[in-house]
Amino acid sequence: MARIDGRLPDQLRPVTITRDWLAHAEGSVLVEFGGTKVLCAATVETGVPRWRKGSGLGWVTAEYAMLPRSTNTRSDRESVRGKIGGRTHEISRLIGRSLRACVDYKALGENSILLDCDVLQADGGTRTAAITGAYVALADAVAWMRKRRMCPGDPLVDSVAAVSVGIVGSEPLLDLDYSEDVKAETDMNVVMTGRGEFVEVQGTAEGAPFDRAVLDGLLDLAAAGCAELTRVQAEVLGVPA
Amino acid sequence: MARIDGRLPDQLRPVTITRDWLAHAEGSVLVEFGGTKVLCAATVETGVPRWRKGSGLGWVTAEYAMLPRSTNTRSDRESVRGKIGGRTHEISRLIGRSLRACVDYKALGENSILLDCDVLQADGGTRTAAITGAYVALADAVAWMRKRRMCPGDPLVDSVAAVSVGIVGSEPLLDLDYSEDVKAETDMNVVMTGRGEFVEVQGTAEGAPFDRAVLDGLLDLAAAGCAELTRVQAEVLGVPA
Amino acid sequence: MARIDGRLPDQLRPVTITRDWLAHAEGSVLVEFGGTKVLCAATVETGVPRWRKGSGLGWVTAEYAMLPRSTNTRSDRESVRGKIGGRTHEISRLIGRSLRACVDYKALGENSILLDCDVLQADGGTRTAAITGAYVALADAVAWMRKRRMCPGDPLVDSVAAVSVGIVGSEPLLDLDYSEDVKAETDMNVVMTGRGEFVEVQGTAEGAPFDRAVLDGLLDLAAAGCAELTRVQAEVLGVPA
Amino acid sequence: MARIDGRLPDQLRPVTITRDWLAHAEGSVLVEFGGTKVLCAATVETGVPRWRKGSGLGWVTAEYAMLPRSTNTRSDRESVRGKIGGRTHEISRLIGRSLRACVDYKALGENSILLDCDVLQADGGTRTAAITGAYVALADAVAWMRKRRMCPGDPLVDSVAAVSVGIVGSEPLLDLDYSEDVKAETDMNVVMTGRGEFVEVQGTAEGAPFDRAVLDGLLDLAAAGCAELTRVQAEVLGVPA
Amino acid sequence: MARIDGRLPDQLRPVTITRDWLAHAEGSVLVEFGGTKVLCAATVETGVPRWRKGSGLGWVTAEYAMLPRSTNTRSDRESVRGKIGGRTHEISRLIGRSLRACVDYKALGENSILLDCDVLQADGGTRTAAITGAYVALADAVAWMRKRRMCPGDPLVDSVAAVSVGIVGSEPLLDLDYSEDVKAETDMNVVMTGRGEFVEVQGTAEGAPFDRAVLDGLLDLAAAGCAELTRVQAEVLGVPA
Amino acid sequence: MARIDGRLPDQLRPVTITRDWLAHAEGSVLVEFGGTKVLCAATVETGVPRWRKGSGLGWVTAEYAMLPRSTNTRSDRESVRGKIGGRTHEISRLIGRSLRACVDYKALGENSILLDCDVLQADGGTRTAAITGAYVALADAVAWMRKRRMCPGDPLVDSVAAVSVGIVGSEPLLDLDYSEDVKAETDMNVVMTGRGEFVEVQGTAEGAPFDRAVLDGLLDLAAAGCAELTRVQAEVLGVPA
Repeated sequence: MARIDGRLPDQLRPVTITRDWLAHAEGSVLVEFGGTKVLCAATVETGVPRWRKGSGLGWVTAEYAMLPRSTNTRSDRESVRGKIGGRTHEISRLIGRSLRACVDYKALGENSILLDCDVLQADGGTRTAAITGAYVALADAVAWMRKRRMCPGDPLVDSVAAVSVGIVGSEPLLDLDYSEDVKAETDMNVVMTGRGEFVEVQGTAEGAPFDRAVLDGLLDLAAAGCAELTRVQAEVLGVPA
Repeated sequence: MARIDGRLPDQLRPVTITRDWLAHAEGSVLVEFGGTKVLCAATVETGVPRWRKGSGLGWVTAEYAMLPRSTNTRSDRESVRGKIGGRTHEISRLIGRSLRACVDYKALGENSILLDCDVLQADGGTRTAAITGAYVALADAVAWMRKRRMCPGDPLVDSVAAVSVGIVGSEPLLDLDYSEDVKAETDMNVVMTGRGEFVEVQGTAEGAPFDRAVLDGLLDLAAAGCAELTRVQAEVLGVPA
Repeated sequence: MARIDGRLPDQLRPVTITRDWLAHAEGSVLVEFGGTKVLCAATVETGVPRWRKGSGLGWVTAEYAMLPRSTNTRSDRESVRGKIGGRTHEISRLIGRSLRACVDYKALGENSILLDCDVLQADGGTRTAAITGAYVALADAVAWMRKRRMCPGDPLVDSVAAVSVGIVGSEPLLDLDYSEDVKAETDMNVVMTGRGEFVEVQGTAEGAPFDRAVLDGLLDLAAAGCAELTRVQAEVLGVPA
Repeated sequence: MARIDGRLPDQLRPVTITRDWLAHAEGSVLVEFGGTKVLCAATVETGVPRWRKGSGLGWVTAEYAMLPRSTNTRSDRESVRGKIGGRTHEISRLIGRSLRACVDYKALGENSILLDCDVLQADGGTRTAAITGAYVALADAVAWMRKRRMCPGDPLVDSVAAVSVGIVGSEPLLDLDYSEDVKAETDMNVVMTGRGEFVEVQGTAEGAPFDRAVLDGLLDLAAAGCAELTRVQAEVLGVPA
Repeated sequence: MARIDGRLPDQLRPVTITRDWLAHAEGSVLVEFGGTKVLCAATVETGVPRWRKGSGLGWVTAEYAMLPRSTNTRSDRESVRGKIGGRTHEISRLIGRSLRACVDYKALGENSILLDCDVLQADGGTRTAAITGAYVALADAVAWMRKRRMCPGDPLVDSVAAVSVGIVGSEPLLDLDYSEDVKAETDMNVVMTGRGEFVEVQGTAEGAPFDRAVLDGLLDLAAAGCAELTRVQAEVLGVPA
Repeated sequence: MARIDGRLPDQLRPVTITRDWLAHAEGSVLVEFGGTKVLCAATVETGVPRWRKGSGLGWVTAEYAMLPRSTNTRSDRESVRGKIGGRTHEISRLIGRSLRACVDYKALGENSILLDCDVLQADGGTRTAAITGAYVALADAVAWMRKRRMCPGDPLVDSVAAVSVGIVGSEPLLDLDYSEDVKAETDMNVVMTGRGEFVEVQGTAEGAPFDRAVLDGLLDLAAAGCAELTRVQAEVLGVPA
């Protein structure tokens, strides 16, 4: 069964990461996974949230949102509705947790980095594109801080990338676009470090429940996808993968 | 390394499911996983949300909340703060998704079942206890409906149970209590059907990232735990496991 | 005219007060007035609200809420609606005011006690059950504080109990259940101290206005009911009434 | 002990009720109890809230609010804070309940009257002034409706007035101004019909609890005050008291 | 074409400014432009918002609101809806900006003056009446402060007044009432100082766009109207215009 | 006095309008005025708001927002704060009003077009860039509709463009960037049609009030700027100016 854009089952969409997309942010990236475009901006703030003050440790957090017309059908602004939806909350928390997995809080010192991930255009995989792009923005923000000698050490102990995998028509596919995502029986988002370890595994049976063999196959596919994304991140940042 | 309550690594806490705990609800259960107590109430409503009207299909959803003093330190009421936090949203969505995995919407007809899961006392694993208990409340609500011939068929195609697993001090443990949960390096919630298939797998590296072998070990542990919970549910409902 | 449960007009429903219902709270009680069940949890906090700082005086306050399926028809969560309804506000304020009537702020020192009263099941009289139960939770929390020598003196100068009375079918009745409450022409909630003095008298003509003789009759009935509740509280706390 | 403005203990402040204060409302009144000034506007709407549709019965409700600088110290606008406080809710509900006591819903037909009571200047007794003034605005709105033959009958079966009483320095006083109110040990708001029956009795021990004799004395004082206010209302409306 | 109330095209409605309308506020005014009545209250607070602390400079701000029944059709309370509408925000900001144009922050010292402008009755031009009246309340509040020697200098460097102008049926009209406002093709609000300079010019094509000649004509009309309002303000304040 | 980027006083910044920037929207544009970048998306919806139903007339509205890190210092998300700020409201309303000036509602039929204007990067003039870009997105959305024969006629009767002007250091400047905007004594936003008539004139004295001569000079400058922007719009759309 051919994919709509002719990709192989284990093939990523074209991935582009454009650094320094914004003039003001300490790190900023426009990340594209095919038609999905996410603007990731890293903001450096001295100080940490109240519950962490005096610990000598830093903090990293994230906020995710979609522009109202990033999708095919316009959705209402969460600011207009006056509250943030469950999905937005959930993804913001996931991005924050994922990025914290590669951060040494002690080396960061009592500083905070906030990653804003705004989806300009959505075509499936917005949360995984956001994590993958946000890592690059984070790396740029850390470099900005180190140039100014704001950190006691090197806060980045690894890199982080993420990809979605799923079962569509019984076949395991890598990096689902929107048209595949709506048909997927099982949908899994996997976040991994550059060294190939797991940070998050979130698998959901959208249709029928899945067995262990399916789960294993999806994890293999995701591991290969994350390794490829790690390579792209390294290339973009001009560091050895 | 002994567990604080003397359990073996692959042992559940004492699990109690008390049916008909509330007088008014169509199904209601007080579920206890050790010190964790969750009150699950199922409400049957004729009709479905607007976006589903006329489809002939039913709907199942859930809301999760914690009483302010269910925890060691009191937390503010979300009603007083005027908004629902990200964690609450995330768990409500997880419970709803999990229960929908065992429901045949067509057999349910255009009816809705809403599961309210209110944590009266929290000692780790509140979301997995909620799912496990909510299934029993759902089964009772479905029985209530079938007695009144409200459903075109049998809406329950399977059962659903959930358990947490995690790595504490390098050791994989089943059904973490709160003291274990805060020390866990990796934390995973697994939702499975009575037939032993996966509905949700949510693994998070709280400390260091984890490798595939660790992931495999945790999945084995969770599968055994869910099977045991399925047995308890069947016993409580008086049906063959 | 017989009452639905065979009670005499001046008879309370069976009253049960179970102490130490929660593991974490400094005082906690499940109070039952017949089918009405309210979980009362007392939280001790050092310090007082900002407007009271430096006064040397303590503070006692309360929050009341109903679980969505405590009633026959499910009601929306106030956290989901994003605001607290008028009735909830009003009852929270009433409970706080009532309990403060038996507290010596100076003897409490600059500490706060917050009473959470969550209705698990509602069958009329939830506010009066909450006050009656919250007093016992408060007494336990005060004992907890005194054991730790947190208070300069004994903060409890009296006890507090509450009961509803009303006119149903021209007859004055004590402790209305829900089926009586909806039929009541006049409805009155009375809060009294253990010594038999009034803390709050809230009478409302639901149907026709009432004259002074009716008011006097209801006050007599309520005084007897509160005296009986005071006796139950003393028994449960193991102190002389 | 003399009152600050030289009044006798059982004397009302000067009461003024100015009708037709607003050009647009169907009934409107500026009511003054001494320095307390409340603008009461009655709005007639055809139709009733959803839960009452098809019943053939009307509805009356009220909203109370204080202008930010009606008080000595400015308070924040509830619209700016984004939520209504407990006190506002409580008083709005009290006013609505009080006015409904003199309304025959059947004679009103399926129409609604909404009373807006906005405190322009506060000097104690704002809720009792609001009720007393709102009755006159209601009467004017009803007259407006009857002129247009909107009602099947005469919706007003009685009149309603309200006054506060309290114990200040052991002495029972009628119609407390702000300086008396803050010193009151016991504070009671009483709503009565023109025929002299009770609609609401709300007594609160602000300081020490009170006994039955005190309660009886306050009720006597309030009954006389309400009778006098009923006389003023009748005079203003040009009807026999 | 005659105006509904017989005014000439360049004639203001009867303007009344009543000082000291409220007992508690440091300055207060009931301003009437024909049927439009706005209550303006000035509140003096020592200190300034956080972002201005330590600057030695004062601050002036404003809040505008309409009572629900100030208009012909009742509008919902913004406090009940839980948020402030765009129009309210916009006008509050306009009033604040306008008044700040005549204030010397240094002479005010680190003090704040907040102008509450509450529309009691609306008949067009509520924002311009609010600005014109608020200036007088501000002047009274400043006098109150200077008497108490709270200001390092004289904070009022000029006066401020405002008026609306518009094109109705091709004719430029001064000070539109509501019936004219809804028919206006072009609507302009102009705020000017007592010396005749512009503070705000807000012109909007409600129907067809307008050319420079129309704009010039409206500005002339507004300048004459503001000059007349400045004269009224001076007279009311008992100062030379 | 030279401008920071070497522009002449009456010179616009480089203006770029990129059409079809988004895949899903019926019209979409990335508009750049120098460093200011605004993404404008037009959404076509059949039907109109409730208050306009059955009129045969269409509707055009707009929502404006800034990404949190579009500015030099990050600002909190309005969705997280739970309410929209006054400035956002004001600008959204301005954009909607401005675009409606060139629309023939009858020719649009009972359809709505919603313009989302999201500021990706801010360097002064975000509202004028938004209006100028939104017109192009609107034109594309209208073309999309006409191709599908959704409109009874041609809904665009003119074009609309906007520019800011201001006095900086006594000199009138066209199209202020952020560094100029913060220093401006007077700031004016002018919206004009392609035919050179005014739609909106909003002038504000940020520092000292301004006289008629200054106002006239600014209007001249703005008229020339809008004419140039109209030319750019026409060129981008491939129509005669």
